[in-house]
Amino acid sequence: MTQVAVLGFGVVGGGAVEVLDENSDEIAKKSGQDIRVKYILDTRDFPDSSYKSLLIKDFETIENDPDVKIVIEAIGGVGVALDFARRTLRAGKSFVTSNKELVAAHGYELLELAREKGANFLFEASVGGGIPIIRPVAQCLSANKIDEIYGILNGTTNYILSEMIKNGTAFADALKDAQQKGYAEQDPTADIEGHDACRKLCILSSLAFGNHIYPDSVPTMGITKITAEDVRAVTALGYKIKLLGRAVAVNGKVAAYVAPHLIGAENIIAGVDGVQNGIVVRGNAVGDVVFIGAGAGKLPTASAVVADVVDAVKHLNARKQISWGPEDKNKIADSEDLESEWYIRTDAGKSEVETAFPNARFADTPGITAFITPVMSGKKLKELLKLSALSVFRVIS
Amino acid sequence: MTQVAVLGFGVVGGGAVEVLDENSDEIAKKSGQDIRVKYILDTRDFPDSSYKSLLIKDFETIENDPDVKIVIEAIGGVGVALDFARRTLRAGKSFVTSNKELVAAHGYELLELAREKGANFLFEASVGGGIPIIRPVAQCLSANKIDEIYGILNGTTNYILSEMIKNGTAFADALKDAQQKGYAEQDPTADIEGHDACRKLCILSSLAFGNHIYPDSVPTMGITKITAEDVRAVTALGYKIKLLGRAVAVNGKVAAYVAPHLIGAENIIAGVDGVQNGIVVRGNAVGDVVFIGAGAGKLPTASAVVADVVDAVKHLNARKQISWGPEDKNKIADSEDLESEWYIRTDAGKSEVETAFPNARFADTPGITAFITPVMSGKKLKELLKLSALSVFRVIS
Repeated sequence: MTQVAVLGFGVVGGGAVEVLDENSDEIAKKSGQDIRVKYILDTRDFPDSSYKSLLIKDFETIENDPDVKIVIEAIGGVGVALDFARRTLRAGKSFVTSNKELVAAHGYELLELAREKGANFLFEASVGGGIPIIRPVAQCLSANKIDEIYGILNGTTNYILSEMIKNGTAFADALKDAQQKGYAEQDPTADIEGHDACRKLCILSSLAFGNHIYPDSVPTMGITKITAEDVRAVTALGYKIKLLGRAVAVNGKVAAYVAPHLIGAENIIAGVDGVQNGIVVRGNAVGDVVFIGAGAGKLPTASAVVADVVDAVKHLNARKQISWGPEDKNKIADSEDLESEWYIRTDAGKSEVETAFPNARFADTPGITAFITPVMSGKKLKELLKLSALSVFRVIS
Repeated sequence: MTQVAVLGFGVVGGGAVEVLDENSDEIAKKSGQDIRVKYILDTRDFPDSSYKSLLIKDFETIENDPDVKIVIEAIGGVGVALDFARRTLRAGKSFVTSNKELVAAHGYELLELAREKGANFLFEASVGGGIPIIRPVAQCLSANKIDEIYGILNGTTNYILSEMIKNGTAFADALKDAQQKGYAEQDPTADIEGHDACRKLCILSSLAFGNHIYPDSVPTMGITKITAEDVRAVTALGYKIKLLGRAVAVNGKVAAYVAPHLIGAENIIAGVDGVQNGIVVRGNAVGDVVFIGAGAGKLPTASAVVADVVDAVKHLNARKQISWGPEDKNKIADSEDLESEWYIRTDAGKSEVETAFPNARFADTPGITAFITPVMSGKKLKELLKLSALSVFRVIS
């Protein structure tokens, strides 16, 4: 039997306890032994919980208990979560987390600490919720050079955009709806400004390309500037608008950024709607592999956390080869050098557009001037773009 | 350094050698050491190959060479491939294969043999070509009870159906086209009759549900009976027709079968066209997770083989927990008990249909009588179906 501790008894922590309980037979079969939750750490009281006998308030008990081999962190943020991560690993225990902020900001440090201590630092649930993506990128695609990763990494913004497309609603109304349905938080900044997608992209690209990429190296634009007019024009042009995180290998460097994109209808990712996430991994041997599923939610996220726990149990005395090197700023490429078509909405007239972009492809939307440019880099676009642009988004097929 | 042998220097074997060579840096980084091909076994001569110095014709050399730790099998079939698999594992070496026929027919035996000998038997490439699916099902979803797996498991038939849908061509013409393009073999039986999809489904469901399910427990229908009229009617009804392998957990048993299905347009799998494969795994915690990518082809398949080799290198002295139990006929459910809507094409008149199925939803296709029934089991359908049915396919949303 392996004993674990859960830090934080909120949605994800509670979900992990629930999944460990409900699916205990499957889990014992897969991990080769029973897994039992010994402690649940939370500052709050849960007098009505059936797990209340496991609740404690001091981390030292966990840290000093040699029976606890694995710690599940579901607190969030980089405050106490970081402190507990360091102390868990220093104690030689494995650390499993769904905390993307922690991994994006301190992944390299914690992976190194885990390596020194012969423990494992696992974070499958930090990207794509329940979708298996960290392990497939690390292991299954280990025979490939990865050329590109892109995807819908944030379910909240994908829900908002899907509603805007389906109902023609404005951003503010779609956001309100998402908040009422519990898909967006009361302070939605991290989602709608793209920070959450950025953190997940940092984790994926660190893993795929081998050096830690921090959020400050990733230009990030959210969805707050997308209007109902954009959605109408984009639809008329035959595309879907989606917030993508994207990292592209360019001559041994990596260009990574987060921004809204127009996606061609034939791209499978264009059909990933609502709170779903969808991630494309392009390998030099395998081509495009696509992973789609629930990007958030209590049980999906908890199932990814528990899969990590199972893996940690199976590797109590061995190391998982999930790791990457330190940051290397010389390996960061400028995403403005990447070429693509571009979508532009403007209050300039059609003839003015045609002067600047003779090959512009216009949206058939009376009252809205929007068009697609030929393929060019972001830098070239800035040179040519003398119009006042209301929206500028990349196009990918 | 770890030395490997490759059995069979055809498309997959040659691809594996190529990927090991081309991506050797990535592979060394991921596996923690260099991997070198010491022997390539083939009965043919390859006087112009740059690997000709590695070519040998006798398996004993490989079997008896203690330096060879891993054997890659790319011969196919269950003749010598089975013999070599047994001898490799008996010699305590790990065995990596893309041979679905071998795994579907002898997976349990070979997994047991591997366990006894402390070696690994790995077969990521046997299902879904380059798509990581075996490992995600085994590991990443280890926290879930799997409720259902279904998918497009055969690229050849998916290509043929995609062409029939796109161009309105008859089955025979689409098959000829696929053969000319190299997507179908000269003897296409295993693909078009569904045997290949059946083998892959056997592997997936053995892994997902825990007992070996052999092809003779899986009712299998191919695509040869699908006509251009069906395709027209199905399109008019708003569906795509796809050959699916499907395994559903029913009260502790598993109902598995292969057959053409009508898939609703909003299902992401409906957009998986051409030679692509797409697999949906439904877990009780994670919900639906979808995996899409190249289901066949030299480099995609080779990349999955090499990923297994990397994993085998990392687990030379440990065991991967990919395994299942022996066949249990008591756990096989009758797929005819599964309920769904059904598509029926008939030469009976509309009024005759309406008598038998008062709630039938007809395709708006003059000259073709085709309709969708309400939800019922296959057994119930047989009771009600007094018409002469030209085609009968299940519908899934």
